[in-house]
Amino acid sequence: MAPGLGADELRVRLAAARVARLATIRPDGAPHLVPFCFVLEGDVLYSAVDSKPKRQRSLARFRHVEAEPRVSVLVDHWSEDWAQLWWVRVDGRAAEVAHESEEERRAVALLMQKYAQYRSAPPEGPVLAITGERWSSWVASA
Amino acid sequence: MAPGLGADELRVRLAAARVARLATIRPDGAPHLVPFCFVLEGDVLYSAVDSKPKRQRSLARFRHVEAEPRVSVLVDHWSEDWAQLWWVRVDGRAAEVAHESEEERRAVALLMQKYAQYRSAPPEGPVLAITGERWSSWVASA
Repeated sequence: MAPGLGADELRVRLAAARVARLATIRPDGAPHLVPFCFVLEGDVLYSAVDSKPKRQRSLARFRHVEAEPRVSVLVDHWSEDWAQLWWVRVDGRAAEVAHESEEERRAVALLMQKYAQYRSAPPEGPVLAITGERWSSWVASA
Repeated sequence: MAPGLGADELRVRLAAARVARLATIRPDGAPHLVPFCFVLEGDVLYSAVDSKPKRQRSLARFRHVEAEPRVSVLVDHWSEDWAQLWWVRVDGRAAEVAHESEEERRAVALLMQKYAQYRSAPPEGPVLAITGERWSSWVASA
């Protein structure tokens, strides 16, 4: 087994990441991948559809998780010095947060706190909640 | 439909990317994600298991594609200026390249040409070939 990060360090690096990649399952069983912005609160990653031009496209992930809630999220650190490489993965279940709920308002507020870009244009679309069930990581052995 | 890149530009950006993310399907049907280095030749992305400490872990992807060859690959460009964001996705089928075949030797040579890091420590493990079937992309509208 390759070395991983400690549980605390894993969460620190995950929470600090500006972008992650989300894998969902398409209706035909094939994997689907998109980059996304998120905020970590406890064991939950929140993300939102952020702009109108992407709304149609982004909704694919909501359709997918309705049929198959299992998702995988990856944050990886790239460096040309491969001794600096690391990644964090969260496998869990995703669901749309109820529209206009307290949880949705809190998630949007947390996203605006993390991303200045959201402050001038708050995300309008649905909010996705991914509850982490399995946390894994890898760090290069220097 | 959000704007995408032209077919040539999509390939140029994909080929130049230093790292991508690979989504495969686990035996239980859930998605699995790892970052990986690759080289693009025609419609095929080649990657290799690059170091002994990762060998066991990396083999998961080979087991996965043997049972379910459909994979998704994502290259995304991050910027704090969201008008600069873009991504390229390749959906296709993956298979292990025959060991000690001409194709395997060519793939390893191409990987060593793209990544100086491989030149001092050539990848030893199996080589994965992902044949792209659906090419998609997204660019932020400025």
